[in-house]
Amino acid sequence: MSTLRSSSPDQPAGGSPNDGPPAVVLLSGGLDSATALAVARREGYTPYAMTFRYGQRHLVEIDAARRVAAAQGVARHVVVDIDLRLWGGSALTADVEVPKDRDVSPSAQEASDAIPVTYVPARNTIFLSFALAWAEVLGADAIFIGVNALDYSGYPDCRPEYVAAFETMANLATAAGVQGGQRLRIHAPLQHLTKAQIVALGRELGVDYSLTTSCYDPAPDGTACGHCDACQLRLRGFAEAGSADPIAYADR
Amino acid sequence: MSTLRSSSPDQPAGGSPNDGPPAVVLLSGGLDSATALAVARREGYTPYAMTFRYGQRHLVEIDAARRVAAAQGVARHVVVDIDLRLWGGSALTADVEVPKDRDVSPSAQEASDAIPVTYVPARNTIFLSFALAWAEVLGADAIFIGVNALDYSGYPDCRPEYVAAFETMANLATAAGVQGGQRLRIHAPLQHLTKAQIVALGRELGVDYSLTTSCYDPAPDGTACGHCDACQLRLRGFAEAGSADPIAYADR
Repeated sequence: MSTLRSSSPDQPAGGSPNDGPPAVVLLSGGLDSATALAVARREGYTPYAMTFRYGQRHLVEIDAARRVAAAQGVARHVVVDIDLRLWGGSALTADVEVPKDRDVSPSAQEASDAIPVTYVPARNTIFLSFALAWAEVLGADAIFIGVNALDYSGYPDCRPEYVAAFETMANLATAAGVQGGQRLRIHAPLQHLTKAQIVALGRELGVDYSLTTSCYDPAPDGTACGHCDACQLRLRGFAEAGSADPIAYADR
Repeated sequence: MSTLRSSSPDQPAGGSPNDGPPAVVLLSGGLDSATALAVARREGYTPYAMTFRYGQRHLVEIDAARRVAAAQGVARHVVVDIDLRLWGGSALTADVEVPKDRDVSPSAQEASDAIPVTYVPARNTIFLSFALAWAEVLGADAIFIGVNALDYSGYPDCRPEYVAAFETMANLATAAGVQGGQRLRIHAPLQHLTKAQIVALGRELGVDYSLTTSCYDPAPDGTACGHCDACQLRLRGFAEAGSADPIAYADR
């Protein structure tokens, strides 16, 4: 049975709560979604954070999401259980080795049109669909998602045209849409930013990146491997932003 | 935790299995989706049936879906657990009374632009998103859904423009879409049919409607109430098709 738990049911645990309109924020516990949450707050929204336990191997994400939600102050944080392992077909959810020390430079990514093995079929569509349901019940006209330029060089469901198509569909799916209510918008504020630009933006907004995790294959204690695509991209992002990554890595 | 169970893991339990291309069929256990499944089979697809246990009060639906899947012969039947009760806001999932003996005539429906209290926010979007994930893993280019003219007079996510927008989004969401693979189609073969036309079509295709259930508020033993919108629409459909409804009703 899917369950929905509230990490901070009554009172935001930190930050200062906004009294602006509600927005649903997809929060994975990684660097990108932590930054997207900070942007939602800066834009005056009262954030409702939604995290998925979807059979991913890197469950330390969930703890990171709880820490980020508490630190930034959200109206409510829910963790939704869905099992995407049953589809198979992804290194993130199946017993497939996570690639290490690949060339993740932009030129190498552009040269390949292969979908990474870490792609999970329809993941963002499922996540956004749940966010849409919650947004409709909350009366929210905004959903924030942290997809960005690096993601959509590899994952089909991170591309700007995908996000736009989801928004169009969402506005036909809901009661508000039929009744001529306010138009729902899918906000992807990091869409055209590099990892270095995301780090710089997050620093400016006071995001505490020591609370986040990005590694696809962390040690049991949560220590990042430093060699998977996600670790490499994160480390390069901090380096290019001239900033130190505050999290621990296994052998760096 | 969401679970996925196979009702007929190896061998279709009945009907004759097709050897055509795979199609994911959303199967609720009701009259419409049983008919949509029969259409998928007639069109030569090998059906993969998907049912959701989403916190609905009428759990006899799940048993009906298993019976229909077994009778028609599907390659696999999965029941996916997701909990939509947590959103609240629907008589189907919350402790809200199911309306009885309403005027469900076409003229009364047209006169009202209200969304029925039985509407579940974003339900079809979530269902279709899971179907999309399964379709991608199966390499299926078809998803069947039993929405129809009566549904979309009330539910926003049953309208033809919604189904078309979902299809557009789905083709941007998947690896196949990016790699120029075959275009996925959302088939809604009942879209423009009345309930009477659906019954007539199903009779022609040999659908055993005694296995199905439509009631929003059945007795514990599964007996239909005969008074909710779904029962009234079903009974009128059979009557107009000049056919007897083979299921039992509480007081008719």
